[in-house]
Amino acid sequence: MRPVARTDCKFCAIARGEAGARIVLEGERTLAFLDHRPLFPGHVLVIPRDHHETMRDLPADLLAEMFADARRLAVAVEDALGAEGSFVAVNNRVSQSVPHMHVHVVPRSRKDGLRGFFWPRNPYRDEAHAAEVQERLRAAVKKTPDGGTTTPNGGSWL
Amino acid sequence: MRPVARTDCKFCAIARGEAGARIVLEGERTLAFLDHRPLFPGHVLVIPRDHHETMRDLPADLLAEMFADARRLAVAVEDALGAEGSFVAVNNRVSQSVPHMHVHVVPRSRKDGLRGFFWPRNPYRDEAHAAEVQERLRAAVKKTPDGGTTTPNGGSWL
Repeated sequence: MRPVARTDCKFCAIARGEAGARIVLEGERTLAFLDHRPLFPGHVLVIPRDHHETMRDLPADLLAEMFADARRLAVAVEDALGAEGSFVAVNNRVSQSVPHMHVHVVPRSRKDGLRGFFWPRNPYRDEAHAAEVQERLRAAVKKTPDGGTTTPNGGSWL
Repeated sequence: MRPVARTDCKFCAIARGEAGARIVLEGERTLAFLDHRPLFPGHVLVIPRDHHETMRDLPADLLAEMFADARRLAVAVEDALGAEGSFVAVNNRVSQSVPHMHVHVVPRSRKDGLRGFFWPRNPYRDEAHAAEVQERLRAAVKKTPDGGTTTPNGGSWL
């Protein structure tokens, strides 16, 4: 079942060609364009053409395609814009400005002022706390499929 | 050709079992463990077991595997730790503390204080500037392979 485009979704409007954007990559099921409010010039967003809200909602093959495209763009911003490196990131729900899955690809240079990511650090209270978090994550990971599973539209990936 | 483990690489030491880490996922070619200096408890790193420095150096199938695992962990931090969302990010070279490719997966909650990513914004000077950056990226993207290409050890992905 193909996800339905949301009439109120800005990125669905771009994917349907109803809203303008500076497109830099057109995949069969993906699209990349310049962020209109860039961290730095060359900041691009990779989106699935169909409406999926977060990473967990993506079919496995589309997930792979999106990050293959994100890698192509990381190479492109470095090579075309002379960036020293790149930043590739996804916000799932929290800090996600548009609820249509998107991968940020941002050209980076040393001393460019983007340091916020590394602050603040919130250490574990003690080793027992770290061990407890480790165990909870191990158990949760075991419940997830191996990554080869596709998700039904709107359903949970699990 | 299989990449050679670097004797001075902290993450190769973890992958070889020579350095301790709180492992949460063991893939055939991947590994995930708790970051020892977490942004928030549950902050994990996904690495390839073999030494690859950045995203552009990864074979395409390993790239897909790493982000399938990153997705499993994004689901795990949300479900196991009660996070409202997650942050999935890669620093390629700039801000990359260990030069062995790693994907950060961080549990997020609203008002958790992690706002730095969205600051500062550096707008385009004008439409001509945006158009120029767009064209340079389009041209660079066209030079990259479709994502199905593997990279030789130590060589460029292009």
